[in-house]
Amino acid sequence: MSDHICGTGCSHFSHLNDADLQAEFAEARHSLRTSIGGEKVAGKAGLGGVTHRPLPSKKQGENVSHYYIPANDKTIHWGYFSKSMEPLIKLDSGDYATIETVTHHSNDDIERMVKGDPGVESIFHWDAKHKAVDRRGAGPMDHPLGAGGGLGVHVCTGPVFVNGAEPGDVLEVRIVDTMQRPSGNPDYRGKTFGSNVASNWGFQFNNLITEPKGREVITIYEVDAKGEQSWAKAVYNYRWTPQTDPWGKVHPIIDYPGVPVDKHSITPNYDILKGYEIPVRPHFGMIGVAPVEAEIVSSIVPSYSGGNFDNWRMGKGATAFFPVVVPGAMFSVGDPHASQGDAELCGTAIECSLTGVFQFILHKKADLPGTKLFGLDYPLLETESELIVHGFSSANYLKEFGDSDDAAAEMFKKSSLDSAMTDAFNKTRRFFMDTRNLSEDEAISLISVSVDFGITQVVDGNWGVHAIIKKSIFPK
Amino acid sequence: MSDHICGTGCSHFSHLNDADLQAEFAEARHSLRTSIGGEKVAGKAGLGGVTHRPLPSKKQGENVSHYYIPANDKTIHWGYFSKSMEPLIKLDSGDYATIETVTHHSNDDIERMVKGDPGVESIFHWDAKHKAVDRRGAGPMDHPLGAGGGLGVHVCTGPVFVNGAEPGDVLEVRIVDTMQRPSGNPDYRGKTFGSNVASNWGFQFNNLITEPKGREVITIYEVDAKGEQSWAKAVYNYRWTPQTDPWGKVHPIIDYPGVPVDKHSITPNYDILKGYEIPVRPHFGMIGVAPVEAEIVSSIVPSYSGGNFDNWRMGKGATAFFPVVVPGAMFSVGDPHASQGDAELCGTAIECSLTGVFQFILHKKADLPGTKLFGLDYPLLETESELIVHGFSSANYLKEFGDSDDAAAEMFKKSSLDSAMTDAFNKTRRFFMDTRNLSEDEAISLISVSVDFGITQVVDGNWGVHAIIKKSIFPK
Repeated sequence: MSDHICGTGCSHFSHLNDADLQAEFAEARHSLRTSIGGEKVAGKAGLGGVTHRPLPSKKQGENVSHYYIPANDKTIHWGYFSKSMEPLIKLDSGDYATIETVTHHSNDDIERMVKGDPGVESIFHWDAKHKAVDRRGAGPMDHPLGAGGGLGVHVCTGPVFVNGAEPGDVLEVRIVDTMQRPSGNPDYRGKTFGSNVASNWGFQFNNLITEPKGREVITIYEVDAKGEQSWAKAVYNYRWTPQTDPWGKVHPIIDYPGVPVDKHSITPNYDILKGYEIPVRPHFGMIGVAPVEAEIVSSIVPSYSGGNFDNWRMGKGATAFFPVVVPGAMFSVGDPHASQGDAELCGTAIECSLTGVFQFILHKKADLPGTKLFGLDYPLLETESELIVHGFSSANYLKEFGDSDDAAAEMFKKSSLDSAMTDAFNKTRRFFMDTRNLSEDEAISLISVSVDFGITQVVDGNWGVHAIIKKSIFPK
Repeated sequence: MSDHICGTGCSHFSHLNDADLQAEFAEARHSLRTSIGGEKVAGKAGLGGVTHRPLPSKKQGENVSHYYIPANDKTIHWGYFSKSMEPLIKLDSGDYATIETVTHHSNDDIERMVKGDPGVESIFHWDAKHKAVDRRGAGPMDHPLGAGGGLGVHVCTGPVFVNGAEPGDVLEVRIVDTMQRPSGNPDYRGKTFGSNVASNWGFQFNNLITEPKGREVITIYEVDAKGEQSWAKAVYNYRWTPQTDPWGKVHPIIDYPGVPVDKHSITPNYDILKGYEIPVRPHFGMIGVAPVEAEIVSSIVPSYSGGNFDNWRMGKGATAFFPVVVPGAMFSVGDPHASQGDAELCGTAIECSLTGVFQFILHKKADLPGTKLFGLDYPLLETESELIVHGFSSANYLKEFGDSDDAAAEMFKKSSLDSAMTDAFNKTRRFFMDTRNLSEDEAISLISVSVDFGITQVVDGNWGVHAIIKKSIFPK
């Protein structure tokens, strides 16, 4: 797949206009609506229903594989990245994977978002005797809130090991297509739902102006499931009430993911947001590779290796680039969103299960000089018209604050848009100087007159500011 | 002009689709390219060349006036707002004014941006005997840097007094059209130029990575002057060298506006940004009404009454709404930009003289309840598809920090995107609750899933975060 391995002088934009590749994409997209068939892979992943088959490449004499990874209790890990996990599959540069992702907020409305969907049911299964996925988060297994302590909350599908990926390389992940996951409950046939949670980690939490202060509010949205992806509408909302989990622990606030909400304990309010329509932007809030600094790391706090950076531009047609820091890259994806605004203010988006078709391209370290990936040490996002640089309150909080548990807590205390703005500026300046050979003066003027800085999120501990570079500025 | 005075139930969007009004706009637009003719107004403004004529309204039996305000030493004030100034003109709600604005950075390239343009020459005239506009800024007249101290830098055209405007009302300003000001120098016939200054007040200034640190760099851009408004290209740059003003004061840094740059003292570098094209976004960086808190206020620091809020969306087709706090509103406009990115990182945009056609609409206090203007205490911007709420590090720094000179200095010390984000959130939440009758829970969810927060600027002392509300979310 030589044209997939971009080297010196490659514009990296060619796949957007490559007819052969678009045909390959079109074929891969079928997997959004039907199984790809093929053969079960070996081991645990095979038990989890992961399959693969050859995907005839449109390039003469070339071949790629297409994997299908359903989301279930055997294919997900909950609330953390870890370089030491056993990978789910190993694939080659150029290969595709259709990956189901499930929102960790499904249990906010069990009827609409869990019931009748075997994959989601298997993930959330938790009764007096059995909790299908015990560890939820990077914390200790004997944490009083539950195993993993909820120090990390996202249901992550993966990890995917990319053959040949080594520290210093860059992993490109192309999002070929996405589709919302329909409700499995026959009562809601043909509909899709998501949950928005105004939570204790939201920007508003300590600044509410109406009573009762300290409340958390869940709003359930219906999302257009016809593939048009054009709107979401609120169905009802409710205030979180203390929920007792199946093992008897009471959760007065939302402090542990996947606690089932007893619908008899809450008071639904259907008289909300009448007539309001939210433009839908399906995307993956959490997407990235395993960091090297610690054995196990919370999925909440984004960093140089990606993770929960919550940029709504990370949807269909977008491409992400991640610095590889551990063998195989160890890619995972989760936190699917139907829509969020820049800032993700209340702590969550419309959290809504989503399936994506991804293609993985490996860029070897030696090929990076002279390309836009040279020196990349943060998640870079590319859309048809933009390159988006991600800055954070701390560029690498694991390095800055040490061991992971404490690091996340320290990071939460030091969140600031001011330092995130500085980081976004530093990275953008370096991007122009290192990959476009501009002087510092040229870079600074160009940034000031043409680059837009926005607020990615203010809720993930390590707050984000992104810089949007329009590709149209570059010399033709 | 009853349809111009929006009352309860008015959508305020109607003028965008009003064929009669569009015809009126079309006629007003002629004034961008030719004098409107008409009669000289009385007084100082008449000496400054201000004229007016009736503009036949397309509405039966109605009439409006159209004013033309050229920019020259008699029609501008430099570096400040003041509620106590004598207004340049007095007009009625519904009237139009074509207003020339001139960049205070014109003297960065006298040949391209001053020479041969009588209006600009009259403003910048400063020789051993005569300084045409002495006060530049809100500081003391005996300030060591020069009269006004440069505590405020923008060449402001106005003020315009709106008849009947009283505190509690809202002034709507529609930007019907804009046009770049062509160079007056025959050597550059048909071209337009602007200056971008990486300045001592820029975000980068204390964070330069190449030598010499502490430098200020001016980049001169050529801007498409054909009215297509599609591109700007860098011509050359140079480092600021100490400049001696005509009265003998040496300015080692850019500390006073309008100091003429001796072209023999600088070293132009033409080998910059080859092939880069900046998409042009002509807009007014400084636009607003006089605040009530002080007699004279720096033009640099934006606040609730508008001013230098530097949002590039403030261009053709946009509408601004300002809370009126002094009789007549006392509107001024300046700081014209050909383009800036969100953040205006290095301290300036492409500073480029611009003429605008404006229409002024007065909304009386009694008519505000039930409209989107109810409770407005910040500059609100509207485009065809968006409503944009402006938050600042301090919502009203004049109230927070007292008397104006000290207030601006205090404000500079306390700039933070974190407090600006809080202010933008507070205002957006109140917008939905007060003007759309949503509960706090509805507002917060809607904001989180659909409102985009961006960084307006980090260089004006009172840093800005704006919230972009898509109008498509509202019930049809």
